[in-house]
Amino acid sequence: MPQTSIPGYTYGTAAVARSPLTLDDLELLKRTLLFGEQDVQALRLSREVLADQVEQILDVWYGFVGANPHLLAAFTDPASGQPLADYLAAVRKRFGQWILDTAAAHYDQTWLDYQYEIGLRHARAKKNATDGVHSTEVVPFRYLLPLAYPIVTTLKPFLASKGHSAEEVEQMEQAWLKSVLLQVTLWSQPYVKDGEF
Amino acid sequence: MPQTSIPGYTYGTAAVARSPLTLDDLELLKRTLLFGEQDVQALRLSREVLADQVEQILDVWYGFVGANPHLLAAFTDPASGQPLADYLAAVRKRFGQWILDTAAAHYDQTWLDYQYEIGLRHARAKKNATDGVHSTEVVPFRYLLPLAYPIVTTLKPFLASKGHSAEEVEQMEQAWLKSVLLQVTLWSQPYVKDGEF
Repeated sequence: MPQTSIPGYTYGTAAVARSPLTLDDLELLKRTLLFGEQDVQALRLSREVLADQVEQILDVWYGFVGANPHLLAAFTDPASGQPLADYLAAVRKRFGQWILDTAAAHYDQTWLDYQYEIGLRHARAKKNATDGVHSTEVVPFRYLLPLAYPIVTTLKPFLASKGHSAEEVEQMEQAWLKSVLLQVTLWSQPYVKDGEF
Repeated sequence: MPQTSIPGYTYGTAAVARSPLTLDDLELLKRTLLFGEQDVQALRLSREVLADQVEQILDVWYGFVGANPHLLAAFTDPASGQPLADYLAAVRKRFGQWILDTAAAHYDQTWLDYQYEIGLRHARAKKNATDGVHSTEVVPFRYLLPLAYPIVTTLKPFLASKGHSAEEVEQMEQAWLKSVLLQVTLWSQPYVKDGEF
């Protein structure tokens, strides 16, 4: 389990509930996505590539969210409509760790459980609770999946910045795309009606 | 509106309910996805490329679903576990038209309404109703998004088969990826709990 001192980052701890999905369920999702061992290796290669670029990547992503009021809304005070700087900063630290965790590609029970936790924190179930903030009640589901596209696309120059071959860069991009789609699927579970997930 | 004689294909007809989303909502989704006019043009170019290859594309997609029991399950008789050939064939005709409609890229109210209809037909709300079949009660939400990946990836050789430049092919691929992610987002609406979409 990653050892960090990031507030609210509870990966691998007893504070994280068991995922409603099993590792067998996860295997079927991976098969649907054509996610295989090559993707695991490409993600791990990307960890070496991205580790010292995390802050620059977050600058790009936060710049995109900040430029789009419909996305920034999830970080605002509903009364004033103003962004909550402390909330943005707290989430940013965990978002940086998320980059490293995605690239570590240990898709085991601990990781599966934490995807459930991440989903709960976006949905009404646990939005705002981790950081004790008074913000909007839910991250609207409709933006989770569309955000996957700019997240992965804006990674491309970072993945290509360390001199790897075009084929390696392409494999890292595809592995990231698959992993983000897989994760958004897992995060969606708390949003979906009972019996339809 | 497309004129076809495909059973159950109701695009642009009074049988389709109004989408709960507005065109302004759609615009925000497109912005989140970085979906712009270049993507519209790339999709329309893909229509010329793909139109005479629809059956071959469907062969690939149906081959993938048929090879994965967890996906084929949505087309089976729950009592016997056997695939329903008539159901598979009826959906296939509409799936072929979906390729052409996606590539036509008329993202107007009529199109938006039909995305809602497609979502309802996957969710518990209207599963099986269009074809009057006795099959499983819902297409599990968890497979909708992961399926986007093989759908788009297996299109690549078809998009590249007519001699377009590498840049044009790449633009068509990216436009298809964005459009499918956009559509899966719209299809998810009937699955999501009230007030969380």
